[in-house]
Amino acid sequence: MSSLAELRPDALAALHGELTREYEALKDRKLSLDMTRGKPAPEQLDLAEGMLALPGNRDHLSEAGEDTRNYGGLQGLAEVRNLFAPVLGAPAAQVIVGNNSSLALMHDVHVYALLRGVPGGTKPWSKEEEIAILCPVPGYDRHFALSESFGIKLIPVPLTGEGPDMDEVERLAADPKVKAIWCVPQYSNPSGETYSDAVVERLARMKTGAPDFRILWDNAYALHHLGETRPHLANILEACAAAGNPDRPVVFASTSKVTIAGAGLAFIAASPANVRWYLDNASKRTIGPDKLNQLRHVRFLRDLDGIHAHMEKHRALIAPKFAAVEEAFERRLASHSFARWTKPAGGYFIILDVMAGTGSRVVALAKAAGLALTPAGSTHPYGKDPEDRTLRIAPTYPSLAEVKLAADAVALCTLLAACEKRMAG
Amino acid sequence: MSSLAELRPDALAALHGELTREYEALKDRKLSLDMTRGKPAPEQLDLAEGMLALPGNRDHLSEAGEDTRNYGGLQGLAEVRNLFAPVLGAPAAQVIVGNNSSLALMHDVHVYALLRGVPGGTKPWSKEEEIAILCPVPGYDRHFALSESFGIKLIPVPLTGEGPDMDEVERLAADPKVKAIWCVPQYSNPSGETYSDAVVERLARMKTGAPDFRILWDNAYALHHLGETRPHLANILEACAAAGNPDRPVVFASTSKVTIAGAGLAFIAASPANVRWYLDNASKRTIGPDKLNQLRHVRFLRDLDGIHAHMEKHRALIAPKFAAVEEAFERRLASHSFARWTKPAGGYFIILDVMAGTGSRVVALAKAAGLALTPAGSTHPYGKDPEDRTLRIAPTYPSLAEVKLAADAVALCTLLAACEKRMAG
Repeated sequence: MSSLAELRPDALAALHGELTREYEALKDRKLSLDMTRGKPAPEQLDLAEGMLALPGNRDHLSEAGEDTRNYGGLQGLAEVRNLFAPVLGAPAAQVIVGNNSSLALMHDVHVYALLRGVPGGTKPWSKEEEIAILCPVPGYDRHFALSESFGIKLIPVPLTGEGPDMDEVERLAADPKVKAIWCVPQYSNPSGETYSDAVVERLARMKTGAPDFRILWDNAYALHHLGETRPHLANILEACAAAGNPDRPVVFASTSKVTIAGAGLAFIAASPANVRWYLDNASKRTIGPDKLNQLRHVRFLRDLDGIHAHMEKHRALIAPKFAAVEEAFERRLASHSFARWTKPAGGYFIILDVMAGTGSRVVALAKAAGLALTPAGSTHPYGKDPEDRTLRIAPTYPSLAEVKLAADAVALCTLLAACEKRMAG
Repeated sequence: MSSLAELRPDALAALHGELTREYEALKDRKLSLDMTRGKPAPEQLDLAEGMLALPGNRDHLSEAGEDTRNYGGLQGLAEVRNLFAPVLGAPAAQVIVGNNSSLALMHDVHVYALLRGVPGGTKPWSKEEEIAILCPVPGYDRHFALSESFGIKLIPVPLTGEGPDMDEVERLAADPKVKAIWCVPQYSNPSGETYSDAVVERLARMKTGAPDFRILWDNAYALHHLGETRPHLANILEACAAAGNPDRPVVFASTSKVTIAGAGLAFIAASPANVRWYLDNASKRTIGPDKLNQLRHVRFLRDLDGIHAHMEKHRALIAPKFAAVEEAFERRLASHSFARWTKPAGGYFIILDVMAGTGSRVVALAKAAGLALTPAGSTHPYGKDPEDRTLRIAPTYPSLAEVKLAADAVALCTLLAACEKRMAG
């Protein structure tokens, strides 16, 4: 199959007819597949099945002798903070353990900043005329929706393959209205890229117009490798401290895609001043997190080796799904120069760039064939992809057989939409 | 022993000497007792020990077949909402299940109201010049601290023994700046009183200056009886709906003092509009609560009878502690007209009103003798008890033997402080 652009009208019409017949046959199969979200498959959750009977009868004391059943322990158990400190890149004293959602911690950091202000600031963010946050694109729709819901202006910044375009970030961050930047620094959601040392260094050193600028460093995929290679990600807390901006970064992570998606632990790591600030604010909200779930995690994962061994089991389950998507895209789309897709070394997503102007059509075609994809545009602030071409593919949740079907179907819809576009234009 | 006021100076001095000797002997015992907070004792937590191995291997599906391990389910599992609906006095469709802290839900209701506004309002509360909340006193220090931390003005309203002084509430609520009232309607923290039908009816019907006025109805002790009697508390959701103010109340509760203090479930019940509002806001914060802990609760408590049977076990453990405090106060203080204390039929606290002007001194004397009490004034907005006399006694956490010791010690300190005061004055 030659590239679409080279096809004469009659050959294009013939291809369109062929793809349409194939698409109708696909619809007849009445599939019901969901690739919308980065959800672990049941088999992945089964890996932590042992946790469902933990910590077990009479096992409720922490190493320090605290009764983990009772109130208190706002910062989290020491053994949990020690266990995850190397993952977060911070001393245990600078780690906070929350309940089951790191998004909730990011939300609360927004709220505390808006209603009470942050260390280094002069007033609560909600008292400013207008504030904005930098949004590397493509990015995570829930990040953008969270900031937007508080009336914070979303400013897109292109990603380069090794993090955001730092010339652009530095230019924009010089504006005092710009209070923060969203970052998913390793296996970025959804581009899969990892920030280079140079990017981390520039984020740490750059001059910001706002003295209380924050880097919201959502290291959601710190442990989530797909291949043998391990990326190098510079330590943002150390880089910022060395640059004289220790309070700039707030690091987030969770075990949602390590142990149990809906019943994991979420973490913050930050400077001592930010940790005090967060805990002071959180103390108004709760007497403490669910420490039994913390104990459950320690009993199950045991140590850093235990965490890595557990992640290997995830890798064995999901790497073939990513390979299946790549195989289908390669087979169906490689000969067409209009389509591009990522081959991530970790994380939960593949980006498929379809023909410009056809992203929404591809999603609609897939939907009509029983395949749910993340809405086109969801990777961009306000859900608006100006080129209407970037799709986020989430291959983890369906079974491998379903992923093969789904990836082939996505590729088919991509081709069909491109044909339609060429014929119309 | 005769009343202090009737004692001549020499008899007063003699009593003071006697009490001082007794107090010195108390100090020599080097006690270390904590009656500061309404914490369950380890024996109470042991009642739910079976939960530590629940839900158990391979038990992770809800009645509807949802995988409770995965993301989602923002409102909570249907079986949990059904189980607690009668406790909350709302249909299951109007119940929301959160994570382990009802205080966190109260916090988030504040935050959503402040940053986005509530149904019936015209703008976010943080956009108002000044707002205030009515605080029945004596009340719960964490309620007051939460509102105060957001710059909301705290206005005290006296409690009457059957709820707040409604003439005063109606007068104050006519001011549009007054946006809400805190209520602990049953076995109130710490006075132990339950709101009468007339009070509930007036709260539901009253004209408020703010069209988006909210009753924050923290029914924390709905199930927490100490005796055989069961109080009647009118249904605030039904009363407000009947009065044409369906969106006025937001009901909170939790299982913190039912199952596991640090790992329970928290609940909201409210009007359909308020439920939609809360869920819409919460959807920006989290993909869903910890549903495995919800399943754990259903497996353990089973049904409403199971809940009540479980609460009977709590009662058997804590009723003797309340009786021990009452016995000590009766024995030591009954002959002194200056002291008054409550004999609650439920809840977690006893109020001891000591001689006016000596509350802080009693707490200091107790502290020096190794007995930690809630700071004097903590039952009042801004921690300021104008009469310096209301102490909150929390008898649940120490063992029965310790409670006997502690109650006797509190009574001794109360008498000693009163003697000092009389001698000085």
